[in-house]
Formats: sequence, structure tokens, C-alpha cells
Amino acid sequence: MSEAETPNRSPQIRKDRIHNRWVLFSPARSRRPSDFKAKSNPQPNNQTACPFCAGHEHECAPEIFRVPADATNDWKIRVIQNLYPAVSRELGFQNPVSVLGDVAVSGFGFHDVVIESPVHSVNLSDLSPAQVGEVLLACKKRIEQLRICDSIKYVQVFKNHGASAGASMSHSHSQMIALPIVPPTVSARLESMAEHYKQTGKCSLCDIQPNELLIDESAHFISLVPFAATFAFEIWIIPREHSSHFHEIDSEKATDLGGLLKLMLLKMSLQLNNPPFNLLIHTSPFQDYPSYAPSTHWFLQIAPHLSGVGGFEIATGCYINPVFPEDAAKILRDVRIS
Amino acid sequence: MSEAETPNRSPQIRKDRIHNRWVLFSPARSRRPSDFKAKSNPQPNNQTACPFCAGHEHECAPEIFRVPADATNDWKIRVIQNLYPAVSRELGFQNPVSVLGDVAVSGFGFHDVVIESPVHSVNLSDLSPAQVGEVLLACKKRIEQLRICDSIKYVQVFKNHGASAGASMSHSHSQMIALPIVPPTVSARLESMAEHYKQTGKCSLCDIQPNELLIDESAHFISLVPFAATFAFEIWIIPREHSSHFHEIDSEKATDLGGLLKLMLLKMSLQLNNPPFNLLIHTSPFQDYPSYAPSTHWFLQIAPHLSGVGGFEIATGCYINPVFPEDAAKILRDVRIS
Ligand SMILES: Nc1ncnc2c1ncn2[C@@H]1O[C@H](COP(=O)(O)OP(=O)(O)O[C@H]2O[C@H](CO)[C@@H](O)[C@H](O)[C@H]2O)[C@@H](O)[C@H]1O
Ligand SMILES: Nc1ncnc2c1ncn2[C@@H]1O[C@H](COP(=O)(O)OP(=O)(O)O[C@H]2O[C@H](CO)[C@@H](O)[C@H](O)[C@H]2O)[C@@H](O)[C@H]1O
Repeated sequence: MSEAETPNRSPQIRKDRIHNRWVLFSPARSRRPSDFKAKSNPQPNNQTACPFCAGHEHECAPEIFRVPADATNDWKIRVIQNLYPAVSRELGFQNPVSVLGDVAVSGFGFHDVVIESPVHSVNLSDLSPAQVGEVLLACKKRIEQLRICDSIKYVQVFKNHGASAGASMSHSHSQMIALPIVPPTVSARLESMAEHYKQTGKCSLCDIQPNELLIDESAHFISLVPFAATFAFEIWIIPREHSSHFHEIDSEKATDLGGLLKLMLLKMSLQLNNPPFNLLIHTSPFQDYPSYAPSTHWFLQIAPHLSGVGGFEIATGCYINPVFPEDAAKILRDVRIS
Repeated sequence: MSEAETPNRSPQIRKDRIHNRWVLFSPARSRRPSDFKAKSNPQPNNQTACPFCAGHEHECAPEIFRVPADATNDWKIRVIQNLYPAVSRELGFQNPVSVLGDVAVSGFGFHDVVIESPVHSVNLSDLSPAQVGEVLLACKKRIEQLRICDSIKYVQVFKNHGASAGASMSHSHSQMIALPIVPPTVSARLESMAEHYKQTGKCSLCDIQPNELLIDESAHFISLVPFAATFAFEIWIIPREHSSHFHEIDSEKATDLGGLLKLMLLKMSLQLNNPPFNLLIHTSPFQDYPSYAPSTHWFLQIAPHLSGVGGFEIATGCYINPVFPEDAAKILRDVRIS
């Protein structure tokens, strides 16, 4: 443990003003013992046949498109249907039904997988900035297809890396779930950012003063540890220019973002020894939200999983983070990529 | 997999009207493969010295009280300070400070541990109904001490059982964190229940029609799988009589609840092979909430952890549950405890 992470600092409770929720910071927590045998970080089986690998395309659910579009065996990215979807593209949209006061809708939606490389052992951070940019542009393209569907309200893009971050497949991939509802965390974020706008006339992310929380910057993006980070060493990458929707990104910005994202993943991986993590794109719903346009600003979140969560977080929605964001930012700033 | 859990049912999206959030139900998800080696369920080390065991009291942070109060070596329950607290009882309350639009408060609060038995290998469900009742009454007593402190707004009681549910200590215990803020999930629940009351003139939990979701009942409580359960085989235990605060429970009701809670833990453990789980007491904040009294109703939640969560849940607050609640309720109803 470095000096910056000194466990002697007093605990603090900080408000995440983007999500309007509280986070507890307590360095003392990191010293607590465990009488369980060390949780193993499950390793992938040595796969002879992974359906996401080149040559196994026929073992996958149907393809939506590939990059390059006309590639045969030499594809770089494939966007396919998820074979075990959480929502079903066949169902069609039905209006919510209310039964004895309870509300349900049919589980209509789209659940897709973005295979980020044809090669099993290649991670997102192994790709070049331009190639990471191409993965981002594949997500943009798919979102633009999905938003044509009137009953789709929101698309969540997410990546699970490592078994303890939820991954069931080790071949590098992301997922997209297109939903007929606006999810609760997204509504809370929109409301909270709208409230900030009402009070200050400014978008909370345009208005951000990273100071000692800054990690790095590129032509169009900045990366920082948020003031009330939910997870230890959490990183946000924020476009400098105001934009509500991730799918407004163009190819120049995608390459620029690809470079900064790659750098952040490398720094995190080096400093924290290839931890399990989630990569999340926080964007805005498609329709019915024009009034949110000036106050909502898309961003990327990288959430490493250094410890699990327990009942307190599930019950309260408050997370406990043992590392102060300014300490995490300093450590990440100082990581040298050779 | 039993027939009731048939993966051929269409997905559905249900609204949890207590918390005002959506849950995706998709039986197909339970069939997806994993290419990671099976996650081990970490087992406790063979402890020679567990600080929570009788005879090791001196290795613990200071005791607050024990049950019976005058017991010496023959205590049944101990309520002690947490040695690695998330919040600090020494700090004292300070008003929130705002720095460049961000808000922080000092991490004032109380973080306690309830040791539920002097014996290392005894689980909560091994205790008699009256003994489980005594654990609940110890929590009630501690909450009543904490609510005297003006700046404490809410107390969360929670239990982590098993390493994947967050437990770091295997000796049976619960924890209580007393906070100077109202946590986000609690505010959302209060608002949502108040809205139901405004619309119907009824408390949403008094108003509940369990029907096929019912598992069991006792003199003063019912147990059921909630309509929009976040976790597969999740169980709620709800007092029949309207009451906003858990600490209003009396000893007769505590013994009655002890019996039903024990039965639910045994059924879950038998059916799901002693899964990791969280046990949560959802109650109301102390002050400033008189207007919520008619609409808010305390309850217990048992949340088994049969699978982890991934980036989608973290980003959206929407959970994916592969088991329909009516199927889980039927299975749990039918478990026979010999
Ligand atoms: N041949 C094939 N063709 C097409 N698709 C295939 C396929 N074989 C497998 N798949 C799909 O590939 C996906 C791989 O996804 P991940 O490894 O990111 O995590 P998964 O979705 O399993 O669950 C994690 O993420 C979700 C969402 O966050 C959490 O609910 C869950 O608990 C966590 O483990 C799976 O969704 C699977 O259905
Ligand atoms: N000698 C001693 N005297 C007094 N107290 C002692 C002690 N030795 C250990 N303790 C305390 O005992 C507690 C045991 O608690 P649990 O096993 O329920 O989980 P823990 O709080 O570690 O973290 C889980 O729960 C929290 C809250 O949900 C999550 O943040 C976290 O990720 C998850 O692992 C710890 O909090 C520890 O600080």
C-alpha cells in the first residue's frame, strides 16, 4: 500500500452529483481480515472451440453486420445476436399491463454481442487506438439501427472483463441491450443533471473542474477519477464538447477516444494486475427527452472490481470505497506505460 | 432444472413498485454456457482463532452490550463495534460542505457487528425460533440506542452469509451501519410507496395480494417471492400489521418472526444447497419522515446469490432474473423440512 492510500485518513461521505447518490470513503476498511480462503480469480478453460473465434461463426447466433462490411474470413469485428438473450426481438412491443396494481411489459428488446477481435487471446487494450475506435464505431452503427425502432427507449452498451465482473465468455466482447423502458439509474442520472442545470445554467460535466482528479487528456476527451467514485480506481472518460448521445461521435473522435481508452485500460491493468472490470457507455434515451439535451452529457465509465459488494450496498445503494479519488488519480497519473 | 423453471417462457419486464425499478425476467439466460472454470465458493479456513468465538472477546473491538446483559462467559449474543468501520463514531456530525459544486460530509456514523452465537459453526437457521427472535430484539435494542443521536438519519441492518455474498468472517453475524444521510435506495422506496398511497389511499405492502407468490405465513407475518424479485428465489417477509419501523417489533412478534425466518432460511438452504445470501431489514428513516408513516411498511429481504452481476446491472440498475417469481414461490412452498 502506498503512502497516498494511508488508512489513517478520516472517513468521508461524498455525493455523486451525476447520479444523485452517496458514497462512503473509508481507507480503514482495506485493512480488514478475511477468514475465507482467498477468492480465486477464475481463469478461462483452455478452449479448443470458442464460438466467438474466427472459423466458428456458424456456432453463433445470427450475425447483424461485420467490419469491414465485405470481409469474408478476415473480419475484424462482428456484431451478432446474443444466443441467450435477456430480452426478445421476436416479441414485439406491447403496452404495459397492470395486474392488481403491479405493472409488467413483454420482454421485447434487442440483445447483441460485439466480438471485438477474431483472435481469442486479444484484449481490447491490445488493439491500436484506431482499432479501438472501430469497435466504438461498430457500437455507434448498431445504436443507429436500433433507434429507428420506435418502441426502443434506451440502449445500454457494456463490457464484462473477467469472471468476477460477470463475464461468462473470455473472448474479448461487449454487449448491447436495447430496452423498451428507461432504466432506473438512467432516469436518476437525467433528473440529477437536469437539476444541476436548473440551479446553475450549466451542464454538470461541461462544468467539471477535475484539478487533482485528472488522470490524462486527449484532443477531444479528458479522463479522471470521479469525486464520488463508486469503485476504487474507477475512471471516467468525458468528451470535452457537450453531447447528449454517444452515437453522435464521429470517426476522428472515435480514434482519439480509442487512444485514451486504451491508455486508461493499460494503466489500470498495470497498476492493479489485470483486474476484472466493467466498461460502460452512459448515454441518453432516444425520444421524449429533448428537454434534457442541454443538461445531459454522455461519458464512459471503467469500473474495476477489486472487492465484491455485500448486503449494505444492495439494501441502500450506497457503496463503500476504501480509496479516496484524489489518491487513485495520483497513482494512475504516475503509472508509466513503456 | 424443474419443469416450472422451463426456459421456453417469453421474457417479461416487471416493475418493482416498492422500489420503483424494472427487472428483466428471462429463463433462457439460465442456459448460457461459461468458458471460465467454475467459480469456487470459497470455504472458510479452519480457524484456530476467530475473534467472534467465545473466549476471544479481547480480540474484538469494544462491546456495546451482550445478551443476557449480565452474562459472563455464557453470553448468547454480543453487539460490538466494528474494528474496521465504514463510518466513524469519533468524528461527530458536521454539516455538508460544498466544494466547486460537489458535496461531502464527514464520515460520521456507527458501524457495529452483532455476533449471533458464541459457537463458530452455528448458523442463524440452527437457532430456535425464540433465539432467532432474540437476535432480532438485539438489533431493535441497538437501533433504539442509535436513534437518540439527532444526526443519525437511518440504520441499515444487514447480514452477509458466504464469501460471494460479501462475507469476510464466517462466524455467524450481522452488521448495522447508522448513517447521517438517507441512502438513495431508501429514499426511492419511500417516494415510490408514498406515490402508491397518494394514488390508492393504501400502503403498498398492506395492499399486497400474494396469491401464487405466497410461500408461507405465521401469526403476524407472511413470506412471499416479490412480483418483480431482483434475485432468483428472493424472499420477503412482511408484517401483516402496518408498521413503518422495524424497531416497533415486540418480543412476541420477534419470536413469531424468528420462526418464519428460520423456516425460510432452511427452505432456501435445502433447495439451493446452502447458497451465499444477504438478509436485509428494510425500515424507515427516524426523523423528518412523519408524512411517510401511513405509506411506508418495514420488511425483511432474503437475497440468495446464485449468480454474480455484470456491467448491465451496474449501469442501469435493472437486474436480470432467470426465474419467474411464481415458479420460485411454488418450489419454495413445496420444500418439506423434516
Ligand atoms: N454461441 C453464441 N452465440 C451468441 N451469443 C452467445 C453464444 N454463446 C454465448 N453467448 C452469449 O455471450 C454473452 C457473453 O457475455 P458476458 O461474458 O459478457 O456475460 P453474460 O452476459 O454471460 O453475463 C454477465 O452479464 C450479465 C449482464 O450484466 C449479468 O446479468 C450476469 O450476471 C453476468 O454474468 C452471454 O450473454 C451469452 O448469452
Ligand atoms: N476483531 C474484530 N472486531 C470487530 N470487528 C471485526 C473484527 N474483525 C473483523 N471485524 C469486522 O467484521 C466484519 C465482518 O463482516 P462481513 O463478513 O459481513 O463482511 P465485510 O463487512 O467484511 O464486507 C462485506 O460487506 C460490506 C458491506 O456490505 C461490503 O462493502 C464488502 O464489499 C463486503 O465484502 C467486517 O466488517 C470486519 O471489519
